[in-house]
Amino acid sequence: MPRKPSYDRDALIAQARDIFWRQGWAGTSLKDLESELKLKPGSFYAAFGSKDALYALALQKYLHDSVARMQTLAEELGPLGALKAQPLLVVEAADPPSRVCMLAKTFAELRARDHELSAQAGAHLGEMLECFTALFQQAQARGEIGGDHDPARLAARYQSDLMGLRLSADRDDVDARAIASDIASDIERLRAT
Amino acid sequence: MPRKPSYDRDALIAQARDIFWRQGWAGTSLKDLESELKLKPGSFYAAFGSKDALYALALQKYLHDSVARMQTLAEELGPLGALKAQPLLVVEAADPPSRVCMLAKTFAELRARDHELSAQAGAHLGEMLECFTALFQQAQARGEIGGDHDPARLAARYQSDLMGLRLSADRDDVDARAIASDIASDIERLRAT
Repeated sequence: MPRKPSYDRDALIAQARDIFWRQGWAGTSLKDLESELKLKPGSFYAAFGSKDALYALALQKYLHDSVARMQTLAEELGPLGALKAQPLLVVEAADPPSRVCMLAKTFAELRARDHELSAQAGAHLGEMLECFTALFQQAQARGEIGGDHDPARLAARYQSDLMGLRLSADRDDVDARAIASDIASDIERLRAT
Repeated sequence: MPRKPSYDRDALIAQARDIFWRQGWAGTSLKDLESELKLKPGSFYAAFGSKDALYALALQKYLHDSVARMQTLAEELGPLGALKAQPLLVVEAADPPSRVCMLAKTFAELRARDHELSAQAGAHLGEMLECFTALFQQAQARGEIGGDHDPARLAARYQSDLMGLRLSADRDDVDARAIASDIASDIERLRAT
């Protein structure tokens, strides 16, 4: 019977996600990971294989948690309520590794290299876009927004604005709360009256 | 009398800007620069000192050109017309090193390191924001937008949306023209009637 590893794999992936999210791909060495995750090179290799394999797991976790968070929010507040609440939640999140979206950061950093992690991040941005599109569709099906809107188009603009907001939220010279509130007002304005 | 250098310094800075813009700070080695700029290590050192010193010049050029482009556009189209035209121009620019804003990319990449180039990029984002604010102020002074709007707030949202748009424009699965057109419609909606 194989010995159970003495580490919590999911916790290590979450920790690695935070390091990659903060420092980026090029800014994180295998040595950084081994030291911060407190794994010897042999254990790191046995657990994850390589830095890139661990980065891929971190991206998956980031996407999975983001989609789950939006869905929970939609159960609480309804689809339009969730879309409206999300901008301020992003700005007010307590002490994230970075306010910039990890998918967007990875996509932008590695695109010039044609790196497969950039393709993965791009695909996850597409899945996140589907999640937003589904929420706009549900809002439309419930009659919360008019039938003349195109949910896919609204979702693409919304995701784009959120990516900009998350970059703005890392700046000291910009009132990101005001931007978040203006994005939320745009969502409110869609509401069918 | 010192010999005139046999290279065009401004052209080399523009070339370096494109390499840094595409590949990022960590993704560009001194060797990459020497090879692409066709400079021997001694000449590179004599001309620019270091990779970071050249990156700083590249960021300055990027900012200077961006502000100059917006001002030229405003002379042609008026302040509100320039703000309205810019999103689509960004999406349709022929073959840039990256559609993502170089200032935003540098800021996001190097912020976790507390690198001084991140601070410089952040300061330049602030100068770009002042440029947008001035255009909204001019539009207001001309009566193109109502007196109840806050130009600084409009400018912060506008810049944030543009940063998101520029990231969206690098994706294959998103219609960035539609997003640009929706941002332009938001500007048009401000027009005092």
